[in-house]
Amino acid sequence: MAGTNSERQLLAEGPAIILVEPQMGENIGMVARAMANFGLAELRLVNPRDGWPNEKAQATASKADHVIEATKVYDTLEQAIADLNFVYATTARSRDNYKPVRSPVFAAQTLRTRFRAGEATGILFGRERWGLTNEEVALADEIVTFPVNPAFASLNIAQAVLLMSYEWMKSGMEDLEAVPFQALEQRPSTKEQLFGLFDQLEEALDSRNYFHPLSKKPKMVDNLRAVLSRRAFTEQEISVLRGVISSLDRFSRNSPRKGGFTRSGKEAPTDDSADQ
Amino acid sequence: MAGTNSERQLLAEGPAIILVEPQMGENIGMVARAMANFGLAELRLVNPRDGWPNEKAQATASKADHVIEATKVYDTLEQAIADLNFVYATTARSRDNYKPVRSPVFAAQTLRTRFRAGEATGILFGRERWGLTNEEVALADEIVTFPVNPAFASLNIAQAVLLMSYEWMKSGMEDLEAVPFQALEQRPSTKEQLFGLFDQLEEALDSRNYFHPLSKKPKMVDNLRAVLSRRAFTEQEISVLRGVISSLDRFSRNSPRKGGFTRSGKEAPTDDSADQ
Repeated sequence: MAGTNSERQLLAEGPAIILVEPQMGENIGMVARAMANFGLAELRLVNPRDGWPNEKAQATASKADHVIEATKVYDTLEQAIADLNFVYATTARSRDNYKPVRSPVFAAQTLRTRFRAGEATGILFGRERWGLTNEEVALADEIVTFPVNPAFASLNIAQAVLLMSYEWMKSGMEDLEAVPFQALEQRPSTKEQLFGLFDQLEEALDSRNYFHPLSKKPKMVDNLRAVLSRRAFTEQEISVLRGVISSLDRFSRNSPRKGGFTRSGKEAPTDDSADQ
Repeated sequence: MAGTNSERQLLAEGPAIILVEPQMGENIGMVARAMANFGLAELRLVNPRDGWPNEKAQATASKADHVIEATKVYDTLEQAIADLNFVYATTARSRDNYKPVRSPVFAAQTLRTRFRAGEATGILFGRERWGLTNEEVALADEIVTFPVNPAFASLNIAQAVLLMSYEWMKSGMEDLEAVPFQALEQRPSTKEQLFGLFDQLEEALDSRNYFHPLSKKPKMVDNLRAVLSRRAFTEQEISVLRGVISSLDRFSRNSPRKGGFTRSGKEAPTDDSADQ
């Protein structure tokens, strides 16, 4: 629908994701996929339990090959962040230290600002079971933590990376309500088009003595028009509704419209063509 | 550190998550966990491939038992959303229809507004391999789609649920920069405290003929003070720095401070106690 992958822009820039002593290859692969989903590409591993490369990681990365192939492995966290200018540590719990604690939105905006200024940045994620040590957190500049359900706060490592990657992507958007594709374009109807609908419907109802007793007709017309005015219709919607009224008005159950042609053999009037 | 689970607030309200013909039990479990992480609790399954209950789902739900146990199963999507007032369909691609297309931020705010007004709402997620049919999307009120890397747009179903659940949680926060815990409280230093640091350091350096030649002293003092003023220190930081200067000034490598006591046997001055 939108062309092949090779025609689409591959985003691959931004902070490095640094996993400290990751245990499960499956998680490393899901981290790579989450990064690729939101345009990050630089994965660093500190002393992964099962070594590297890791077949399970490749399997769960789901074609995020450019991330997996560029992954670098380090013996220590100090080596893994040596070339960076600014580093966040992710943690789910208070650390009794003096580092500023940031929300993901704030942290992503900070990373974007520093990225635009040419700084090399990174985000640390701890082990699956027990996160980062205090000594590892101490190597970072600031802390980022997630706004989770207090009674169910444990995030999977790939989910934590996904959220930071997603906020990174959003931090580069000018408009947070922007979407990559739109509904089919529709023009709002004019009042004249709306009045045409009123007239057609009221005439069809009038001819059937719908407005009964006649003394109540003005109030009934008011109510009917209120129903049809409450939500602004588009031109297409007015056209659909007029086709519906035509069909109900001009044909009966015993004598329905036949295959797009009227009984005289002529094509149906154009306002039927909007039936759908 | 923050008490047991039973003491913490369990958030369990908001839109229903509706999975249409989910295939993998593992994914259903990860969906339940993601929901629980961000305070959602109502999971509905339409015609799950492997039936329900599902052991693999229970295993990957990682103790989101309250979600798994309350999960309801339906034969059709129409039945699954019959009691709802407003429904979003998630989709990664344009559908050639007239439904409004929203970002996750916009959709979550809409859901929150409707939730506060007492409406029952839901979010549809399609099959792992090929999403929702056009007919299923047509049953929803609006579409929500994610701002992904154009060349790597395929989100895992549990990741998609995670992102919507996360945005739901954020839509209830008054301040997007709020965090659940803070750094230890620190008071910024006063200028008098900063000047005390200047004086101590400059006196210690002066006594060593650091300012040489003397004609350059004013410029050297300026530079030194600029280094120490660029980032506002807290009271604690000033205290640490003064302890460092004391230590360098008063002890030598050949004659270091001994075990917290000076050589005279008296306790060290209090400004050393801030060494850490």
